[in-house]
Amino acid sequence: MTDEEEVREVNRGFYLALSSLDMDAMDRIWLHEPWVCCVHPGWSGLRGWEEIRESWERIFSNTVSQTVEESWVSVRVVGEMAWVACQEQVSTPPEAGGMVSFAVSNNLFVKTTSGWKMILHHASPVPVELPTSPSAKVH
Amino acid sequence: MTDEEEVREVNRGFYLALSSLDMDAMDRIWLHEPWVCCVHPGWSGLRGWEEIRESWERIFSNTVSQTVEESWVSVRVVGEMAWVACQEQVSTPPEAGGMVSFAVSNNLFVKTTSGWKMILHHASPVPVELPTSPSAKVH
Repeated sequence: MTDEEEVREVNRGFYLALSSLDMDAMDRIWLHEPWVCCVHPGWSGLRGWEEIRESWERIFSNTVSQTVEESWVSVRVVGEMAWVACQEQVSTPPEAGGMVSFAVSNNLFVKTTSGWKMILHHASPVPVELPTSPSAKVH
Repeated sequence: MTDEEEVREVNRGFYLALSSLDMDAMDRIWLHEPWVCCVHPGWSGLRGWEEIRESWERIFSNTVSQTVEESWVSVRVVGEMAWVACQEQVSTPPEAGGMVSFAVSNNLFVKTTSGWKMILHHASPVPVELPTSPSAKVH
């Protein structure tokens, strides 16, 4: 696999971990350093793996079920650092509210002896355009 | 100057450009490629220098005066890619509303033959904690 393919795979793994509320996978995906960063949609920035790990535990324990899908994925590898820009679609099943929301996300990775590891996840809610009401149309 | 010092300088230049509404400086700071990305606080993600340039022109033409200061700056250089995490404080003078707001920001740069160039700016509003009202205190 090329570096780009490996980065795509780890990024995909991150969204699978989000969808399956899998803390062990999160542990494997992130670099455990005091300088890694995470910005959840609508949150302040978090610094350091300890604080970030706690936030995922809190999110996972408050989530019954969700699917997080990535789209518009763009990968840029420069030596041993890689950047992934993508859009996230978060869906909850009907029994958990049946909501769909979108976020724009930028993820950063560094290459280590045990593969590519996440050092930044920054996700922001995407404003949703409401469909134009019929009365607003010009006939 | 070390790479880290150069990156800090370009990042500082970016906030000076924001404070002085300086489009020429923005032109110099960014890499003009179709894959660069920008997420303004509360906006959807923008891709490509053309679209990003238009957004800065729109923001600058709608802003009378502002000061954008960076704090909590953390720089990480890995080869020819560099990541800056920081907090932004945006202040408008009394005659322009006298508002202060905060954003958490992640900026990415690549090293080119003409220096370090910005390839990502992702800023999200930071939720502000309201001071506790006296009535909420336990006496």
